[in-house]
Amino acid sequence: MRLYIGLDVGRTIRGALIDELGAILLQRKVVSEVRSADTFLNQIVDVILRLKAEAHGPVTAAGIGWPGLVNQHANRLEATPNQIDLSSLEPYRRLREAAGLPVLFDNDANAGAYGEWRCGIAQGFSNVLYVAFGTGIGGALILGGELQRGCRGFAGEFGHFKIEVTGLECGCGSSGCLETLASGPNIVRRVRERLFSDPAFSVSQLAQDMEGTLTLERIVRAATEADELGLSVLRETAVYLGMALASAVNLLNVEMVVVGGGVMAAGELLLGPLREETMRRTIAPAAGCCRIVAGELGRDAGIVGAAMFARDANR
Amino acid sequence: MRLYIGLDVGRTIRGALIDELGAILLQRKVVSEVRSADTFLNQIVDVILRLKAEAHGPVTAAGIGWPGLVNQHANRLEATPNQIDLSSLEPYRRLREAAGLPVLFDNDANAGAYGEWRCGIAQGFSNVLYVAFGTGIGGALILGGELQRGCRGFAGEFGHFKIEVTGLECGCGSSGCLETLASGPNIVRRVRERLFSDPAFSVSQLAQDMEGTLTLERIVRAATEADELGLSVLRETAVYLGMALASAVNLLNVEMVVVGGGVMAAGELLLGPLREETMRRTIAPAAGCCRIVAGELGRDAGIVGAAMFARDANR
Repeated sequence: MRLYIGLDVGRTIRGALIDELGAILLQRKVVSEVRSADTFLNQIVDVILRLKAEAHGPVTAAGIGWPGLVNQHANRLEATPNQIDLSSLEPYRRLREAAGLPVLFDNDANAGAYGEWRCGIAQGFSNVLYVAFGTGIGGALILGGELQRGCRGFAGEFGHFKIEVTGLECGCGSSGCLETLASGPNIVRRVRERLFSDPAFSVSQLAQDMEGTLTLERIVRAATEADELGLSVLRETAVYLGMALASAVNLLNVEMVVVGGGVMAAGELLLGPLREETMRRTIAPAAGCCRIVAGELGRDAGIVGAAMFARDANR
Repeated sequence: MRLYIGLDVGRTIRGALIDELGAILLQRKVVSEVRSADTFLNQIVDVILRLKAEAHGPVTAAGIGWPGLVNQHANRLEATPNQIDLSSLEPYRRLREAAGLPVLFDNDANAGAYGEWRCGIAQGFSNVLYVAFGTGIGGALILGGELQRGCRGFAGEFGHFKIEVTGLECGCGSSGCLETLASGPNIVRRVRERLFSDPAFSVSQLAQDMEGTLTLERIVRAATEADELGLSVLRETAVYLGMALASAVNLLNVEMVVVGGGVMAAGELLLGPLREETMRRTIAPAAGCCRIVAGELGRDAGIVGAAMFARDANR
């Protein structure tokens, strides 16, 4: 059986040795060194070489999912807003030469979608929207039985749906984007603002964390323990995400929305209200043929998908 | 050369005899009789039979573009919110039998998009968003070189993008939809509200029309003549439409947006600000590879597209 390497490059570099059916044989990860582009690139090479060395057999190819805009035809990173800029280092050439393997670049959300479509919950479906809610908000489209990348490979940028006519400025240059309210760091910001502005929330278990240690994980745990502030901010988040999802389901008429990404650690606490809000705001016949589900591969969707990209391009 | 009939069914039933290259040979239209479903259906039959009788040769097939949700696989009208309900009359069976021709149903925006794609400005492009701004706001997607209808044929419902967290209720059951602000009738409503609420606009040439005769055509004419109120409402409309278009271009990474529909009678007065607003709010690399253009076929896009659907299904 042929072997492939899949990588998901974010704040953590996660890599795995994966067989041609998508089974993960071995995983390696390292926290990204984001202060030096050169070191960062060497870390990626390192993960690939370690997996290659530990494989019981030759590795055929590697796939890498990157956050940001990836020109997949040219294996070029066009914009990686939440990440160190590698463009001056010719990352594609360097990685390919150092790894001694065919290497393929794609967007991380495309990789997550491809993982769930080839090996996860979306197997057999032809019209699927994949959304990843995390530090950023990404997405990918499968329509007509094909992963649709658009004309340059940038398709799927779901985080920059405008949900307010006048809203907060966004890193993308626009304002009122979904990401300014519903990404992981912005959920934390909203909790912090509520703690400052509303004395009623001084009883929240999150009040003790407001001096800098507040994290999304902490908020989700509080919500799980029925903390009113945690619950209220997650419900509000579901409203924002649901607005944008309803718009997308109306536009695409997909039969499945697969939801992944770190924010989904909140599980049904977020997915329940999100499903309800989305369905309530979607045109009835389109809502009636669409299911909203959590991904089956969890955090591994991206590495499995990246490996499956490498497989399908190098059979 | 084979002959086809294309129909666009709205407040007017417009039909044409069209050759296999998309040239219009003959047009017929009639104002829809919306008080009786039976009469309405007979009007459609009538237009088809007249065109068939006047053709210098046999007609191969007919295509019909309907407003609303059309299940194109089943030739079934699932929801026609702005139109009389024909579902109890088995319109497909009746039209096919009365016309004595293969008949094909699709959504009117799909037909418009197909017209522009096969015979108009979008020829040769593989990733195109078509939007029609009129009494309602519709759309259609061409991605990866295919018209994408989604899992049931409902794809393209661009008018129900949510652009406000709390907004006006919409006929679709949701609120904050683009259509509640930017459709033809809602543009008229906004002008009327401004005239009532802001005394500064009593100098507007539209002030004399506020007692019921105000129309979109009148507003566009006022704007053309530099009327402040007309211009201001068109600019505001461009902001709403641009927000939703930017979201869609971010999601789809199309290389072209073709804008059609009755509201586009405003021409560059609307298209200019719309283009600017959309580009400003789209992620730069995606904006950089996308053109926003007016359709080339104008009001004929839908009838040409419907005929081309009939051609491509009955070669």
